[in-house]
Amino acid sequence: MGNIHGHSFRIATFGESHGPAIGVVIDGCPPRVPFDLKFLEQELARRRPGQSDLTTQRKEADAPEILSGLSKDGLTLGSPIAIVIRNSDQRPQAYAEMQSAYRPSHADFTYDAKYGIRAVEGGGRSSARETAARVAAGALAKTVLKHACGATITAWVESVADIQMPATNKIPSLKEVEASPSRCPHTATAKKIEACIRDARSDGDSVGGVICCVISGLPAGLGSPVFDRFEAELAKAMLSLPATKGFEIGSGFAGTQLRGSAHNDTFIRKGGKIRTATNRSGGTQGGITNGEDVVFRVAFKPTATVLKPQSTVRPDGKATTLSAKGRHDPCVLPRAVPIVEAMAALVAVDHWIRDRGQNAPFGRCGRKA
Amino acid sequence: MGNIHGHSFRIATFGESHGPAIGVVIDGCPPRVPFDLKFLEQELARRRPGQSDLTTQRKEADAPEILSGLSKDGLTLGSPIAIVIRNSDQRPQAYAEMQSAYRPSHADFTYDAKYGIRAVEGGGRSSARETAARVAAGALAKTVLKHACGATITAWVESVADIQMPATNKIPSLKEVEASPSRCPHTATAKKIEACIRDARSDGDSVGGVICCVISGLPAGLGSPVFDRFEAELAKAMLSLPATKGFEIGSGFAGTQLRGSAHNDTFIRKGGKIRTATNRSGGTQGGITNGEDVVFRVAFKPTATVLKPQSTVRPDGKATTLSAKGRHDPCVLPRAVPIVEAMAALVAVDHWIRDRGQNAPFGRCGRKA
Amino acid sequence: MGNIHGHSFRIATFGESHGPAIGVVIDGCPPRVPFDLKFLEQELARRRPGQSDLTTQRKEADAPEILSGLSKDGLTLGSPIAIVIRNSDQRPQAYAEMQSAYRPSHADFTYDAKYGIRAVEGGGRSSARETAARVAAGALAKTVLKHACGATITAWVESVADIQMPATNKIPSLKEVEASPSRCPHTATAKKIEACIRDARSDGDSVGGVICCVISGLPAGLGSPVFDRFEAELAKAMLSLPATKGFEIGSGFAGTQLRGSAHNDTFIRKGGKIRTATNRSGGTQGGITNGEDVVFRVAFKPTATVLKPQSTVRPDGKATTLSAKGRHDPCVLPRAVPIVEAMAALVAVDHWIRDRGQNAPFGRCGRKA
Amino acid sequence: MGNIHGHSFRIATFGESHGPAIGVVIDGCPPRVPFDLKFLEQELARRRPGQSDLTTQRKEADAPEILSGLSKDGLTLGSPIAIVIRNSDQRPQAYAEMQSAYRPSHADFTYDAKYGIRAVEGGGRSSARETAARVAAGALAKTVLKHACGATITAWVESVADIQMPATNKIPSLKEVEASPSRCPHTATAKKIEACIRDARSDGDSVGGVICCVISGLPAGLGSPVFDRFEAELAKAMLSLPATKGFEIGSGFAGTQLRGSAHNDTFIRKGGKIRTATNRSGGTQGGITNGEDVVFRVAFKPTATVLKPQSTVRPDGKATTLSAKGRHDPCVLPRAVPIVEAMAALVAVDHWIRDRGQNAPFGRCGRKA
Repeated sequence: MGNIHGHSFRIATFGESHGPAIGVVIDGCPPRVPFDLKFLEQELARRRPGQSDLTTQRKEADAPEILSGLSKDGLTLGSPIAIVIRNSDQRPQAYAEMQSAYRPSHADFTYDAKYGIRAVEGGGRSSARETAARVAAGALAKTVLKHACGATITAWVESVADIQMPATNKIPSLKEVEASPSRCPHTATAKKIEACIRDARSDGDSVGGVICCVISGLPAGLGSPVFDRFEAELAKAMLSLPATKGFEIGSGFAGTQLRGSAHNDTFIRKGGKIRTATNRSGGTQGGITNGEDVVFRVAFKPTATVLKPQSTVRPDGKATTLSAKGRHDPCVLPRAVPIVEAMAALVAVDHWIRDRGQNAPFGRCGRKA
Repeated sequence: MGNIHGHSFRIATFGESHGPAIGVVIDGCPPRVPFDLKFLEQELARRRPGQSDLTTQRKEADAPEILSGLSKDGLTLGSPIAIVIRNSDQRPQAYAEMQSAYRPSHADFTYDAKYGIRAVEGGGRSSARETAARVAAGALAKTVLKHACGATITAWVESVADIQMPATNKIPSLKEVEASPSRCPHTATAKKIEACIRDARSDGDSVGGVICCVISGLPAGLGSPVFDRFEAELAKAMLSLPATKGFEIGSGFAGTQLRGSAHNDTFIRKGGKIRTATNRSGGTQGGITNGEDVVFRVAFKPTATVLKPQSTVRPDGKATTLSAKGRHDPCVLPRAVPIVEAMAALVAVDHWIRDRGQNAPFGRCGRKA
Repeated sequence: MGNIHGHSFRIATFGESHGPAIGVVIDGCPPRVPFDLKFLEQELARRRPGQSDLTTQRKEADAPEILSGLSKDGLTLGSPIAIVIRNSDQRPQAYAEMQSAYRPSHADFTYDAKYGIRAVEGGGRSSARETAARVAAGALAKTVLKHACGATITAWVESVADIQMPATNKIPSLKEVEASPSRCPHTATAKKIEACIRDARSDGDSVGGVICCVISGLPAGLGSPVFDRFEAELAKAMLSLPATKGFEIGSGFAGTQLRGSAHNDTFIRKGGKIRTATNRSGGTQGGITNGEDVVFRVAFKPTATVLKPQSTVRPDGKATTLSAKGRHDPCVLPRAVPIVEAMAALVAVDHWIRDRGQNAPFGRCGRKA
Repeated sequence: MGNIHGHSFRIATFGESHGPAIGVVIDGCPPRVPFDLKFLEQELARRRPGQSDLTTQRKEADAPEILSGLSKDGLTLGSPIAIVIRNSDQRPQAYAEMQSAYRPSHADFTYDAKYGIRAVEGGGRSSARETAARVAAGALAKTVLKHACGATITAWVESVADIQMPATNKIPSLKEVEASPSRCPHTATAKKIEACIRDARSDGDSVGGVICCVISGLPAGLGSPVFDRFEAELAKAMLSLPATKGFEIGSGFAGTQLRGSAHNDTFIRKGGKIRTATNRSGGTQGGITNGEDVVFRVAFKPTATVLKPQSTVRPDGKATTLSAKGRHDPCVLPRAVPIVEAMAALVAVDHWIRDRGQNAPFGRCGRKA
């Protein structure tokens, strides 16, 4: 259980890090959406390992194969869309040590505790490799959102370790985000972050950080109080990602230090619409989108895999020392950017379909209502 | 949609702030659990308005009526347990202004946008009044947990505005938490927090803060990767509460500033069990509990209702000024403590039943396997 | 588990036969639907015990109380609607024998096997009394359907024991169905059925039969292949009713004897629409409604409670003889008619909302799209 | 939506008849179950087209590829198991006529009505080809059941057209079922059925029939009243199969003609257990298994594809005549036998896991509780 996400736009993901393949089945995609394979490949490329010296050097082509759900013309049929991505760079031998010792802050111990069995190579299902399937589904979700309401999603690295970019209300462009391998759109900060990650790598160590994400262009009215509030499902989606330790929306933890009179978002009329003058709410009120940008942040811990020797225990409880070899991702933040976007897209499109129905008009790609 | 929570221990809540009643139907409670009505009443009393001068002065008896699901001896039958709590202190006239102006940072506007209709009195369904139903369900969830595995849940106020209690690894006792109306267990800090809340009240203003919560005694192995990770469902549960803006587990946002070698929790053997030397993971690894305390924090914004005049718009978009009257809760934190505990209990018991089944042995209260 | 029905229009029912109350929480009802309390009461009256000498003589006022979800003007708010019906005619003493012996073909034994505990009075949760909550929810579902697409639902008794009304394609009017206490709209057959039921009663015995039900006016396009086909969810809904043993749609079991060339429904054009010349499909093809009447039948076994002595065992396995006293319903068919309609309405409206969304335009009662 | 089945043992199927592949992702399979690939292949072979002259001559190798969820030793990991089956014998050109005319009693029209788009070749998603994915998942479900409680599932053809095998309480062996290509275990009847199907084929026509299925060895206590009764979920599972028109359990429709005193199943003590003397209930009472055989029947209509010319309309409503070419399955019953078994296994294992939990002890393959 636990591998199916969503209520009306549902995805079922599968695959271990070093098994034959990973993939996803998407159930509930509206019909007649033009499937954009090129965009899917681009999104996967943004998550792909080995794209720069800041990330793991695992080599994966990440070439998606679409097994179902499309017409000859590349339109969605309304039936499930299955996407398979083969694993190619498998090095089971590099993980021999994982059998004999629990890696600290990895899921080796808890998988053993829960299942009594474990795919030892590369963490199996607990590996971040499974997130490629989420990015694939997220690419379709982004396409649906674009056609449904023109909404767009942008994430970027805001801080790594203690290096933080200056606060700004401006949403960076995709180009600005992609300009640095760190995916921090502030050039000076990006340089520092790159150096920081390289330092960690050369030390055999790792660093964490914070990603900021904005969903722009959603209509007011999405979200299902009380339990399925828009931000509640965003929080779940983000905390379902490997290595995440926190989520905040709008003013977040910092906002707890303001007084209500300073925190409240005043309503104003602007461009014929009811808007808020500020956006400390982060785009939702009472669990429902209010038409402003949905702004949230996600905390990622430093990668658990470090190359320094660590003391730990073996499955039988005996103490031992673990010196990891294998590939090593000193910072997951740059590659996590498209993953955060994907999960945000999945949450948003799920709520859009709950509200409007699976067969709601989809602009030029949809059927007439 | 959105008013049902849980997969295997499911609750459906209902009720508007100023309607006839609020309540909950609990589906999936294991059979033969001794229902503890007195404990249920105690928990509701901890959430009840008017319990001190720090909270709203709304008067509610919050007397629960159990309509189903119990044997004559007070054991659960395995069938749904319905609990109804009548609303008594309704003052619809106090909310006349809400019809003519959208209260800033409340859900008036978004409910109108979503539903095209709204229960104007007291916020209707978006009022925190609905959380009484969660506390009622949570009381039963706590009872189930106690019998299932002896797990206990403790939450407390850690900060209000910029007043923060000193860091500690010690879990306070219920008595220590309840010693101050602020529900901050650190006496000196509690006094400051009380003063801070009274100041806000006298200014017609409000303050926010952070609640810390610990689940102790859960076995290793709970949680359903990849989407239904234990901490992901905790995050959703917390962000589904009114006024919440953030969630973090273990080291949280602060942990993003550590290096991996400093952040990792070393495994050790202790008392015949595999344990971790530190708990920056916060009790879960890979989305599965590891047997350590589950430690998380929730950020609450300052209450949106302030008595100072605020500029806003009317439903037709015309600008206006709103001067709230009515009752006013200058800080939700003290009353939110049992609510956070309730949601944590609901998440934990849901995962326990997923793992062990609805009819797993329940110690002395359960049937033989 | 098991007490929540539906995907997008969800109901959670609760209540034992001789507990304080039964009821339902409806989650997902679209906003701005005019709630018709009088209609709700009428529907409950059609199911009410004691309405004629053909049914059990239990006396229940079945007066529903609405606890939430409505505006002052009686429009649905889009939030959960809770309906409670108090039990009044409780006679726990009449069921003393149920504690000491398992009633044949009742659920006494299986509830003990599953839960290890049981509400002995009147069958507790397994009693048909719980269906009153379904009828209450079904009344609202019928109202939604009427406003959504004008669809109507009509059920009637087609056979009791070996007495069967003549085959016809005509859908009887509500008045015709209600003309006889048997709810068989064919006058001559109705008389025979009434006599048959009275005979069974005077013999301390019981009879079963078949109910036919038609949903008219649904648009083509409802249903979610492959698992949630329209007829699959109808079948589940019907087999979830007490005493049901079979379900068939369209030509059903009899149709298995035809050849394909004789069974197929030819497409024709009629009134500007694509229609079928015959309706052996029963209104669905491939799990999706085709715009024709949805026609199905449900088999009800003879009531398990008979007043004749029956041999059985006690919970400890010892043989005994059971002579039921208490109230006795010699035939459930007449009262099951509104229950079948209610479940059909719940399935249809659930699919309607899946297809169109929770906030789809609802004619004069809905908000603008 | 609609392509995910189950609550605790969930499957997501995908694939169109003439797309690249069909397949299934299984989420919630307990860990450490020995995956039996050979058995999976055998089950697929029983469903495979072209296995005798009684069925369609489509040629499909139906070679399953397992993409995830298994350890090197072939044990389930507790993570999702993805199975892909490539389509090989695609003849899109044979379906040219399907674009220009709606085939009577097929889903061409309803898919167009629902989705506004359709995979015309071979019916796309509405083709019975998708049931191969169900058989694959069902093979694993059977394996889990065997290890969990020793339960077995046997289905067979009981009637075709008006040819019916004699009534018997004996459950045939797999060998007896497989002895005839008709899968009717009564030799004399099987011969008549074979002749009947060949006659239909030579006439370019088709025939329907009834399949009987028995689940033996389930413990008492499975099923989730009130909505998720064991037989209700069986009914849904069966009516979700292509070409099904009816479902009955135990005495079914015929039982409606008995009186209660003749229909009731008397409890007796036998072999130290509480049993019923007869089994008109069909193995469930009140929606919960009682430890007796679960016995049910499924009605299949005559195949909609016939080679005789049929009048119909084109998508634009114009009348036309359709003369189907392409492959033709004169009777789906023989191949439907393993499909019915697969769905029964999926329902049973789902209820088993709901009751016992995902990590319940699985005999020799399971972990210690």
